[in-house]
Amino acid sequence: MRFGVNHTPSVGWFHSWLDFSPSDTARDMEQIASLGADHVRIFPLWPVVQPNRTLIRQSALRDVATVVDIAGSFGLDVNVDALQGHLSSFDFVPSWLESWHRRNMFTDPDVVASTAAYVEALAAAVADKPNLLGITIGNEVNQFAHAPHPAPHDTTAEQGHAWAAAMVAAARRGLSVASGVSGLEARRGSAPLVTVAQYDAAWYDDAQPFGPEHAADHGDATVTHSWVFNGSAALHGALGPGSVRHGEYLLQLAAAWNRDPERPNWLQEVGAPTNVVDPADAASFTEQTIRHVLDAQHVLGVTWWCSHDVSRSLADFPELEYDLGLFTNDGRLKPAGEAFAALARSARDGATTSAAPPSTALVLDDDGPDGAPRHGIRADSAPGGRFAAAWLELAESALDGRGPQVVLRSRIDDDTLLAARGITRCVEVPDDAPTALLSVAHPATMA
Amino acid sequence: MRFGVNHTPSVGWFHSWLDFSPSDTARDMEQIASLGADHVRIFPLWPVVQPNRTLIRQSALRDVATVVDIAGSFGLDVNVDALQGHLSSFDFVPSWLESWHRRNMFTDPDVVASTAAYVEALAAAVADKPNLLGITIGNEVNQFAHAPHPAPHDTTAEQGHAWAAAMVAAARRGLSVASGVSGLEARRGSAPLVTVAQYDAAWYDDAQPFGPEHAADHGDATVTHSWVFNGSAALHGALGPGSVRHGEYLLQLAAAWNRDPERPNWLQEVGAPTNVVDPADAASFTEQTIRHVLDAQHVLGVTWWCSHDVSRSLADFPELEYDLGLFTNDGRLKPAGEAFAALARSARDGATTSAAPPSTALVLDDDGPDGAPRHGIRADSAPGGRFAAAWLELAESALDGRGPQVVLRSRIDDDTLLAARGITRCVEVPDDAPTALLSVAHPATMA
Repeated sequence: MRFGVNHTPSVGWFHSWLDFSPSDTARDMEQIASLGADHVRIFPLWPVVQPNRTLIRQSALRDVATVVDIAGSFGLDVNVDALQGHLSSFDFVPSWLESWHRRNMFTDPDVVASTAAYVEALAAAVADKPNLLGITIGNEVNQFAHAPHPAPHDTTAEQGHAWAAAMVAAARRGLSVASGVSGLEARRGSAPLVTVAQYDAAWYDDAQPFGPEHAADHGDATVTHSWVFNGSAALHGALGPGSVRHGEYLLQLAAAWNRDPERPNWLQEVGAPTNVVDPADAASFTEQTIRHVLDAQHVLGVTWWCSHDVSRSLADFPELEYDLGLFTNDGRLKPAGEAFAALARSARDGATTSAAPPSTALVLDDDGPDGAPRHGIRADSAPGGRFAAAWLELAESALDGRGPQVVLRSRIDDDTLLAARGITRCVEVPDDAPTALLSVAHPATMA
Repeated sequence: MRFGVNHTPSVGWFHSWLDFSPSDTARDMEQIASLGADHVRIFPLWPVVQPNRTLIRQSALRDVATVVDIAGSFGLDVNVDALQGHLSSFDFVPSWLESWHRRNMFTDPDVVASTAAYVEALAAAVADKPNLLGITIGNEVNQFAHAPHPAPHDTTAEQGHAWAAAMVAAARRGLSVASGVSGLEARRGSAPLVTVAQYDAAWYDDAQPFGPEHAADHGDATVTHSWVFNGSAALHGALGPGSVRHGEYLLQLAAAWNRDPERPNWLQEVGAPTNVVDPADAASFTEQTIRHVLDAQHVLGVTWWCSHDVSRSLADFPELEYDLGLFTNDGRLKPAGEAFAALARSARDGATTSAAPPSTALVLDDDGPDGAPRHGIRADSAPGGRFAAAWLELAESALDGRGPQVVLRSRIDDDTLLAARGITRCVEVPDDAPTALLSVAHPATMA
C-alpha cells in the first residue's frame, strides 16, 4: 500500500504557479519525503494553464513537469490533477466559462473538446516521467454539477458518464506519447493510473448526478475523498468509530460498485479538519484513520490532505484549511505528521494491509422498482443513514476489528464475483435500522 | 488634445501577463508610436495581480511598471487601469469573489478594503514614472453591478459613490509615494490623472446604479466609452450622424454633470465594431468620429480601441473583437489605422480642438418631483431617445457643424456656470419630440 501527501505549496499556496519557484518546491518535497511518503498529488490551476479555450500555455506545462522532476529527485512519485477547478473552498474557473461565456462544462461540445485537449496536453507533458503515478481528471469536479458553483446545473448521470469517458480517453491519449520510450515501463514498475476524483456527494447525495458508477466505471482505480465534516464527526465525535472509520467505510462502500474485484481503491484525500477534530486529537485521528484503512482490501494507497498548513497571510480560507498540514506553514512537523510518518515507515518495512479481504459483506439495497437504481440509496449510505449505521455496528462488533465489505443486492447472486472478492457471508441491514438520521452535509458547511 | 490607443497585446491578448514578454510589448509599442499616438492605456488582469485577497504579487506589479517604461522608450505616456474585471466579453474575477466567497464587490468591507489595497499598490508601482498619464480604477467596472456578471447586484447609487471615492483615494495614496521625487513634476508637465471608467449604461440605463454623477464627481476627468453597437448604428446606420457623432454626443452629455466647467472630458474608448460597421467603412467611421470629437470643448483626449486585432487562434471572442485593431494581429496597418494616424499627426502639428466651446446648449430635464433626479432621464438620453434625437437634430442643423453642449435644467439658472462654459443660448427639447425609440442595448448583444 502506498502512502502519500497532497502537496499544498507552503509559499503562496496554489497561487505559487504564478510565481513558480523550483527551490520552494524542492524544500516542500524534501520535507514530504522525510515523512516516509512515496508519492505526492499536485494541482495545477486550470485558468493559469488554459486561460483561453484554445490557449494551453506551454510554460505552465513545463512548470508542472519540473515539479514532477523535483519530486522525483526526492524519491517521490507524482499524481497530477488536471481540472482545478475547486480547491479548499476556492473556484478557479477560466473566464471562457464565466458570464457571457457561461456554458455547461460537462456537456457543451466546444467546452468538452477543449477541456479534453487540456487534459491530454497535461498528461503528455509528464508522460515520460518515470515517477509519474498517474493523472486525475481533476479535484472533485463533480462539485461543479451544483450550486454555489456556476450554473447551469442540469447535467444528467448519462452526460456525466460521457464526460468522464471523454476525459479519461484524453488522459490516455496524452500518456500514450511516451509509449515508445525505452525502459520507461521497467523503471516505473506499473503504468500510470488515470482516475476520476469526486467528493463524497457521489455516494451520499441522491441529487448529485455524478454517482458511484462514475467512480467505479472510469479509469483505473476507484477514488474516494474522506472528510468527516460531512456529518460523521458531528454524529459520532471526532474520535468515535464513525469518524475514524469513515475512510475505511468509504473505501468499502465505493468498492461495492467495482465490476472488477481486483480494481484498486484509492483513499486519495483524507484529513483532520479542525472545525470538527480538536487539534489535540489530530494525531490520534490520523493514526486510527490510517490503521482502519489498512484493514480494507485492494487499497492502492492513502494520500493525506495535506502537506503544509496554509499561511495565515492568505485571507478567506475556511478556518480549518489553515491547520490541515502535516507540517506547519514554516515547515515544522506537527503531531499528525509524526503519526503519519510512523505508519508510512512501518508500511515500508512490510507491515501493510491484511492479506485476505474481510469475508463478511453488508448488502446494499440498490435495486429500485423495475431494476432502476433505488432513489434514497445514497441518503441511506450517508453518515447517520440506516446503511451506514448498520455497517458501523457490524464493523465494531467484528472480532478482528475489520469493517465488512459491501455488496450490492443487484450482484448478490453473482457467485463468481463474490468468490473473487472473498465474500463468504452476506448480512442484511436489520429491518429495525433507523432511517437516515441526517443528510450529508454540503462542503459549504465547513466554512 | 491627446491621441492614444488602448493596447491589446498582439501575442496572447491580455493572457500575455502570464508569460510577460518585454520584446513582444516593445514591438507593439513601437507600432503604436508609429501612428503618432502620444499615449496608451494598459490593462493588468486583476486575478493575476491579486489572486488572494491579501496577496498582491510584486512580480506582477513589476511587469506593469516595465510596460510603462517600455512605452516610455517609444515616447508614449501610459494610463494604467486597475480592476479588470471585464475585457471584451470576458470576466476576470478573483476566486475570492466566486462561489462560497461571493460577496458584493462594491459594498463588502473586506472586499472594498482589499480592492483599494490593490489599486493603491498598482498606483504606487508606477507613481515615479515620468510618462505616467494616469490611473483608471478599472475598465467599465459598473458592468459588475448587474447580470450576467456575478451577483449580488443590489448596489445603490450611494454605495457606488462610496466605492468610487474609496478607490480614487486609494489611487491617490499610491501616487503620493512619488511626491518627493525630484524633478518628476517638471518632466511630466501635468500630474497623473485618476479616473473612473464606466460603460454607457451610466448615461443610458436608468436601472444602472452607477450614473452620470459617478463619472463627473470622482477623479480628475469625466470618462466616456463610445460603442455604437448600443443601438446607434442600428438606428442611424454605421456612417449616419447618430453614429459618427456618438462619441461627440457622449462627451457633451457627460460634461453636463461636471461641477467644474474646466473639468476635462476623456473619450477613453471608441472603436469601429464590425457587427454594425462594415470593415470597408471603418476608416471613414474612424475619421468622422474623431473629427466630430475635435468639435467638443475641454476634451482631454481620444483613446482608440484598440491597437491590435485579436488573434484568430484565440477562441470565443465576439466576432467583432477580432477586427477592432488599428493593426492586424501580425502588425500590418489597417485603413482605420491610417485614418487615425493622419488625424493624430495633424493634431501634433497644431490642428487641434476648436478654440471656443459651442455656445448653444440643449436643456436636459433632470429635475424630477421634489427635486429628485428624474427617472427616465437616461432612457431619454440613450440613442433614439427624445433627448438624444433633439441633440442630433440641433447638431446637424448647426452652421458650424458642431453639436451643442448640454445643460441640466437644475443648473440652468447658474449664470456663473453658464458663462464659464461659454453657453449663451439654451434650447429646449421640442414638445413634439418622440419618446424613447429604443432602449439602450446591453453589451451582451455584441456577441
